[in-house]
Amino acid sequence: MNVKLAENYGFCFGVKRAIKIAEDNVGASTYGPLIHNGKEINRLKEDFKVSLVEDISTFKKGDKAVIRTHGIPKDKLSSLHKKNIDVIDATCPYVTKPQQICEEMSKEGYDIVIFGDVNHPEIKGVMSYAQKGATVVESVEELKDKFFYDKIAVVAQTTRKVDEFMKVCNYLMRSHKEVRVFNTICNATFDNQDAVKILAKESDVMVVIGGKNSSNTKELHSISKDNCNDSYLVEGPDDLIASWFDDKKECGVSAGASTPDWIIKQVIQQIKELSA
Amino acid sequence: MNVKLAENYGFCFGVKRAIKIAEDNVGASTYGPLIHNGKEINRLKEDFKVSLVEDISTFKKGDKAVIRTHGIPKDKLSSLHKKNIDVIDATCPYVTKPQQICEEMSKEGYDIVIFGDVNHPEIKGVMSYAQKGATVVESVEELKDKFFYDKIAVVAQTTRKVDEFMKVCNYLMRSHKEVRVFNTICNATFDNQDAVKILAKESDVMVVIGGKNSSNTKELHSISKDNCNDSYLVEGPDDLIASWFDDKKECGVSAGASTPDWIIKQVIQQIKELSA
Repeated sequence: MNVKLAENYGFCFGVKRAIKIAEDNVGASTYGPLIHNGKEINRLKEDFKVSLVEDISTFKKGDKAVIRTHGIPKDKLSSLHKKNIDVIDATCPYVTKPQQICEEMSKEGYDIVIFGDVNHPEIKGVMSYAQKGATVVESVEELKDKFFYDKIAVVAQTTRKVDEFMKVCNYLMRSHKEVRVFNTICNATFDNQDAVKILAKESDVMVVIGGKNSSNTKELHSISKDNCNDSYLVEGPDDLIASWFDDKKECGVSAGASTPDWIIKQVIQQIKELSA
Repeated sequence: MNVKLAENYGFCFGVKRAIKIAEDNVGASTYGPLIHNGKEINRLKEDFKVSLVEDISTFKKGDKAVIRTHGIPKDKLSSLHKKNIDVIDATCPYVTKPQQICEEMSKEGYDIVIFGDVNHPEIKGVMSYAQKGATVVESVEELKDKFFYDKIAVVAQTTRKVDEFMKVCNYLMRSHKEVRVFNTICNATFDNQDAVKILAKESDVMVVIGGKNSSNTKELHSISKDNCNDSYLVEGPDDLIASWFDDKKECGVSAGASTPDWIIKQVIQQIKELSA
């Protein structure tokens, strides 16, 4: 069986940057998982003594706290600073951007609409910067019972599908005087999404590698599934099942933005062995 | 034959306001046609001595110049003020708004995109307020060879179809960081458009009344035609042709935003006579 990698896949700029920051800060702790990939987090712990802290009260004066790529809520950040924790910000700059937009636009009196998942850490962080709160929606339907004044600013979770974001913006644009659309969807996300779509169309089976709690990986898997019915999401080689590859000729592989190359290599190796 | 008027039709707020201003200024001249309806302009001349001036140099110090509902370019307005003409502004407030937006947004460094007809007086006026010029397009296709920086402000000609405006905005939103969408399409236009669509669907023949150079009337006629093949645009009763009504049962009537009621009444009367 032929195994082919997507034209664009895996680690994005923000994740590469965050891992570098973590590696440069041996002995630090990340507040929440640095990226949505448990295996890479384990590697950082084993090789660089960068541990994972979930409870903010655990940090003591002088500790080094690495802020995860997804960012954290504004009050948590203030609280770290107040406790004189040494804060090292590994928030992806593409996430810092919508945080700043929410802060500035709410200061200027705009109602804030965020297209994304209210339970995702990135959005919990972004929405905390809206001074009078933000409306977070995952679809146009959720907007229908909401009221907004005439000036609205809209941002998107970095990993969202642009077509869905457009629908939300269009709904608002029809009936409001000014809608300020900040397309905060990340290019890396676009590139990986475009590439998985092309590859899925020409593949008999698709394997998408990434954390099962990774939003962008799930998005990639969903696009893959839309274009190749036999599309599977795996976290590593152990999740692969031999029967997936029975009678298949072309296997496409892609990986989420927080999936390291070493896992991708292991998975491809295992696919080859299972289908041999 | 039944003749039925659309739920919403005819004079909009801006036109009513401009006619009132003209009637209140007996002996004044309008710079360019006050509204796009020759018959109403003749009435203003006959009943209120409000004449039509096409050449700006004709105005002399102390003359009263009424600014047309569509507005005029910024330099022409300055030129009238410099010559100490008594300027009476009948620009529709819904047109003043995009003029102000173009001025403010270009000052703030936004690239300006206008969705509309570059040859329409309203747009000639609106675009003149963009300090470094504006890109005027009538479709997404016209945007494809254009370059913009990351911040774009978009306005629309007041009489445009909102769906077409959305397409232009969506095209820009996909690939630019910030698109500030000002929905400057007029509600009266929406209301008349929605109503003509409903009426056209249930009619055998449609008559849309308005000036043949009136943008919103042409738009109404186009929507009507999309929903009822036998849709005709007339300026007054003399344009009606008896054969249009042969074997028809339901005739729908609508009128553009600059069509006065007295013409609508004449047309309906004539339709009834022709189809009797």
